[in-house]
Amino acid sequence: MMNQKMHNLTEEMNTLLANSIPNSNLGTDLEESMSYSLNAGGKRIRPVLLLLTLEMLEGDKSKGLATATALEMIHTYSLIHDDLPAMDDDDYRRGKLTNHKVYGEWKAILAGDALLTKAFDLIANDQSLNSDIKVRLLQRLSFASGHLGMVGGQTLDMQSESQQVNLTTLEQIHHAKTGALLKFAVMAAVDIAQPNENIASLLETYSEHLGLMFQIKDDLLDIYGDEQKLGKAVGSDINNDKSTYVSLLGIEGAEEKLAQHKTEAYECLKQLSSEYDTQYLDAIVKLFSERES
Amino acid sequence: MMNQKMHNLTEEMNTLLANSIPNSNLGTDLEESMSYSLNAGGKRIRPVLLLLTLEMLEGDKSKGLATATALEMIHTYSLIHDDLPAMDDDDYRRGKLTNHKVYGEWKAILAGDALLTKAFDLIANDQSLNSDIKVRLLQRLSFASGHLGMVGGQTLDMQSESQQVNLTTLEQIHHAKTGALLKFAVMAAVDIAQPNENIASLLETYSEHLGLMFQIKDDLLDIYGDEQKLGKAVGSDINNDKSTYVSLLGIEGAEEKLAQHKTEAYECLKQLSSEYDTQYLDAIVKLFSERES
Repeated sequence: MMNQKMHNLTEEMNTLLANSIPNSNLGTDLEESMSYSLNAGGKRIRPVLLLLTLEMLEGDKSKGLATATALEMIHTYSLIHDDLPAMDDDDYRRGKLTNHKVYGEWKAILAGDALLTKAFDLIANDQSLNSDIKVRLLQRLSFASGHLGMVGGQTLDMQSESQQVNLTTLEQIHHAKTGALLKFAVMAAVDIAQPNENIASLLETYSEHLGLMFQIKDDLLDIYGDEQKLGKAVGSDINNDKSTYVSLLGIEGAEEKLAQHKTEAYECLKQLSSEYDTQYLDAIVKLFSERES
Repeated sequence: MMNQKMHNLTEEMNTLLANSIPNSNLGTDLEESMSYSLNAGGKRIRPVLLLLTLEMLEGDKSKGLATATALEMIHTYSLIHDDLPAMDDDDYRRGKLTNHKVYGEWKAILAGDALLTKAFDLIANDQSLNSDIKVRLLQRLSFASGHLGMVGGQTLDMQSESQQVNLTTLEQIHHAKTGALLKFAVMAAVDIAQPNENIASLLETYSEHLGLMFQIKDDLLDIYGDEQKLGKAVGSDINNDKSTYVSLLGIEGAEEKLAQHKTEAYECLKQLSSEYDTQYLDAIVKLFSERES
């Protein structure tokens, strides 16, 4: 049932993303390049998490669609820029050529810039939300994706390459780099549905545990993942001498930490379950801890 | 008097920009890199134009400061990305090393991304404006700076390098690449002060003529400008075989076109002068047509 649900939401997001970039009629392939990366697949986990949280909160799904699309645009722009030669220099992502390999480096930079800008545009122009909610979402998104969030985390991550960092720094990196957008997914639904403060606070804690689970699992998959399922080579962290949860805690220690966050995420949901149907958010915890790709 | 006014506003903007990036405490120099480019000087013409328009409309100056700062951040991020090796590959700007020459290419990409994001953050968090006005400004800024505006124009400009384009395409490029942010400067003041539709429409036309004047003058200065005053080499358009107003119309033809837009910009202001004191916006037209750098 969760699988069907996830599948339907992913398909819905794919359709929205495929139609999200109107042509400028300037006669360039900038829009094609933006759409190439938006349409390159992926699990759409951030927008799906937003929509599942909104559903749990009994919010109107149509009010979450533009923000979910914007969120995936931010994620996509970050991948385009991360893949650039000056950053991670990746030629492939999910088995497809990266943006700059198809459209060239300068256009990939501009396509990323334009997707980032378009994300704010989508929320600011969302007809289904009032101005107060839009402003709240835009505040939250600019915080989560900027120098205090995702971009800051990516900078610290790049700076920490090929050097040992301690667990505190590792958590700082991931809290900002991947955690901030996952938290945004959950808290955007809170902004839209506006439950009481106690509910909001439980969901915030839930989202933080999810973010850490996501990263620990990533590090574990780099050790024992299936290259076919992952769509990328394993062992790259070791080869790059990168500090990970596994290098700092060992496989068992990382598994233990994953289990700990899983327990705490479930604990949040248990408290929410007296008021809401938490089945899908429960399933997300299971997915995050058991995913193979 | 205009000089003093411009000087004061420029200084005020410099101070605001110098204090606009709080540290993330992530222990990287990302914020330093963002501030380096924000503090690298320049005429601050866009924020100054915004504040002068707001003053003419008898709007509250304090309501324009955050948006003016955001606008200069967008302009600054675009310069950082334009200077990158994959784009224009410039080592110097205004006599200072470009961002990537000081901080490296990957950090320059991220600093640009973070400044773009911060611009939206500043407006969304502006305490002096209500949510409706903020949303209107954010709609306008995301449009002006995205794929339908500045980034689209930059793409078309890059794509047109080393090839002849006609006057229609040249105007399309500049309308989007430089015109969109200049129009934003004027129309943001309209959003904040909310004059009637007739006034708004006159100011929009005024801003469009300003945008074209700006570019025509740029092309002329590349022919007869003073390298010392410009802070860059002249003749680069010719050397790069770039289509400009001068290459398409000749010097005289370009001067004529400049004069024409000047007349039309003054005409808009003449109509506004029955209701408002247009002295500063008149002076802007003079500045745009006579500037030496």
